[in-house]
Amino acid sequence: MSENAPIFPTVEFRRRIKALQSEMARDGLDAALLTTPADVFYTTGFLTRFWESPARPWFVVVPAAGDPIAVIPTIGAALMGRCWITDIRTWDAPDPVDDGVSLLADTLTDLVPTSGRIGIPMGLESHLRMPIADFLRLQGRIAPRQIVDGTRAICRVREIKSEAEIAKIRASCAVADAAFARVPEFVRPGVPLSQVFRDFQVALLQEGADWVSYVAGGAGPGGYGDVISPADSRPLRAGDVLMLDTGAVRDGYFCDFDRNFAIGRAADEVRRAHAALYAATDVALAELRPGMLARDAHRIMSDALQRQGAVAGAGRLGHGLGLNLTEWPSFTPLDTTELRAGMVLTLEPGVEIAAGRILVHEENIVLRSDGPELLSRRAPVELPEIMQ
Amino acid sequence: MSENAPIFPTVEFRRRIKALQSEMARDGLDAALLTTPADVFYTTGFLTRFWESPARPWFVVVPAAGDPIAVIPTIGAALMGRCWITDIRTWDAPDPVDDGVSLLADTLTDLVPTSGRIGIPMGLESHLRMPIADFLRLQGRIAPRQIVDGTRAICRVREIKSEAEIAKIRASCAVADAAFARVPEFVRPGVPLSQVFRDFQVALLQEGADWVSYVAGGAGPGGYGDVISPADSRPLRAGDVLMLDTGAVRDGYFCDFDRNFAIGRAADEVRRAHAALYAATDVALAELRPGMLARDAHRIMSDALQRQGAVAGAGRLGHGLGLNLTEWPSFTPLDTTELRAGMVLTLEPGVEIAAGRILVHEENIVLRSDGPELLSRRAPVELPEIMQ
Repeated sequence: MSENAPIFPTVEFRRRIKALQSEMARDGLDAALLTTPADVFYTTGFLTRFWESPARPWFVVVPAAGDPIAVIPTIGAALMGRCWITDIRTWDAPDPVDDGVSLLADTLTDLVPTSGRIGIPMGLESHLRMPIADFLRLQGRIAPRQIVDGTRAICRVREIKSEAEIAKIRASCAVADAAFARVPEFVRPGVPLSQVFRDFQVALLQEGADWVSYVAGGAGPGGYGDVISPADSRPLRAGDVLMLDTGAVRDGYFCDFDRNFAIGRAADEVRRAHAALYAATDVALAELRPGMLARDAHRIMSDALQRQGAVAGAGRLGHGLGLNLTEWPSFTPLDTTELRAGMVLTLEPGVEIAAGRILVHEENIVLRSDGPELLSRRAPVELPEIMQ
Repeated sequence: MSENAPIFPTVEFRRRIKALQSEMARDGLDAALLTTPADVFYTTGFLTRFWESPARPWFVVVPAAGDPIAVIPTIGAALMGRCWITDIRTWDAPDPVDDGVSLLADTLTDLVPTSGRIGIPMGLESHLRMPIADFLRLQGRIAPRQIVDGTRAICRVREIKSEAEIAKIRASCAVADAAFARVPEFVRPGVPLSQVFRDFQVALLQEGADWVSYVAGGAGPGGYGDVISPADSRPLRAGDVLMLDTGAVRDGYFCDFDRNFAIGRAADEVRRAHAALYAATDVALAELRPGMLARDAHRIMSDALQRQGAVAGAGRLGHGLGLNLTEWPSFTPLDTTELRAGMVLTLEPGVEIAAGRILVHEENIVLRSDGPELLSRRAPVELPEIMQ
């Protein structure tokens, strides 16, 4: 981040708020109440790792018209004061008697008519980052105003990335591209997976990540067992397939893609699986268009895998990406979200090589009117082999 | 983490569950429903960075007697299967129609009598990591069983660390000690703060952190403005005071302490502030005892600062620590939690040097029956000066 420049100019935030208010109006919402790091950053530019502490709730209220209001712990006043919004109300948190509830209730009752509706994200992939007991207290304090489901409006706006946001995600992808290119520097037979994870995080930081919110992966003979376990200290061996996956963060925006490496010569079945994943990704890169549904993306990739004689793994085959490591929609057979131009998405086909051995492959794209544009550098056609 | 060994033996988890069930019985709870990374790790040993994805909820049900039940997305089955618990129920998430609600409701209705009470953490510093809409659906599905406040039982148990947990936190502190010792290697006048933050994270990883969930800090002439802002690219200058603060994670456990460095010669007022913080910490190290209240710790440190002629900064002067960067209790004038032996805590006095310029100082301790035992290596008496 540059010395005094905010990550985005105020015009970017005004555009976002206007879009939110337009969707809120469509749903009859008189205000939106936001509590999560991503929603607060999206509306105000307030970016901090301090969210890691669960001690304090943070609130942003987006009115039906006008600028957002921050209702936050005093410890955040200086940082929020450097953001674009000007109405910042603080209390000394944590307060075991009244941890911001009165201040928030007063803010909402001033802003919203008694017959009014306040939307919060309460649907799929959401959570409310405040104590439930305080939420119930808040409901009582602001009645007869209602708190209702505002998920649609938030998703609808955040799903479409501006060019400024796409540039940020592209920059995060470039950090990971550079770090993946350095994997052969620190991966060889005999190195424990736990050391590989550390070295990969170091490489991501050295290549420009502000921080590394997510690294996962796996390694095993002819494939790995799962993709979410922390690293163990088992040394890599010839015959292993190593996968590294990352959510590196730069200026608050994530990348999320993985790369595979064979330790020594890759077995034929592994090469075939890798080729099938590569081909399925190519098909998605060629065929995805705005107007399709999320489930169409799932079908396109699973059909392509099947044509290659591969068995698609369970689970989703891609998802949204941006301020969170994963966002809506999800490429599952059940997700009927319409794909729209400006969505940043992962293409993430996976195959089962044998029982308990899988291979996954992931790229990041932005969907344009004429199809996907890659944000990650396309993985090599041939699975890289690390011999040494 | 070693090749196949879990982070803790099963006996550690059985002790935790027994303690939880004892507190649950006291509060008349027939089950506890847990949803956060810390609570799930605490009860099952399930450790993953995959929580970074908000796409899927995860549930652990602790019955009044017997082992916990995991109700989780299929993608976590392999990892949970390597934990000590055996009853693992899965669904394919994310599912826009029924994202685990039926499976969780069935689990709870089988386990809890119709007149029963299910506790969830809903008090200070808690949140429910599932969509509110699904929570409301769940309440409907399990009625007339009630979901009630289970915060006390969870806090009461998690607040007291076992020797095995204390050893983990001590190991995380040792990682940060080693990384702080290397600060003079990469800090000098002219280096941008953003580069210092990256290098410090690299040092933490190289010294043994599994990952770095939190780094913050600040730098400014004669003190810094706040302690939660991300790094800007302003180069360090002679006369600055630099503060680095970290939550490095090893085996799932956090440290949380900071260190200060003068760039060039420290001004007299900065040295006086540092001496006051050092002395206030010494007083707390000498005087804190089990049986005191959290607010007594606040009073002890703010009185000590006042005796030094310093102005205590606003906000809390310490807090719990362990599976989260910050845990209960909070050293504020309002927190009446009783301090007990086995609590791992931060001592975190802060002073205001001038308007908008503060200095903070932090150590990690475990409270023993005869007083605090340091887990971090005590900061040097004299503020270190980086001249070069």
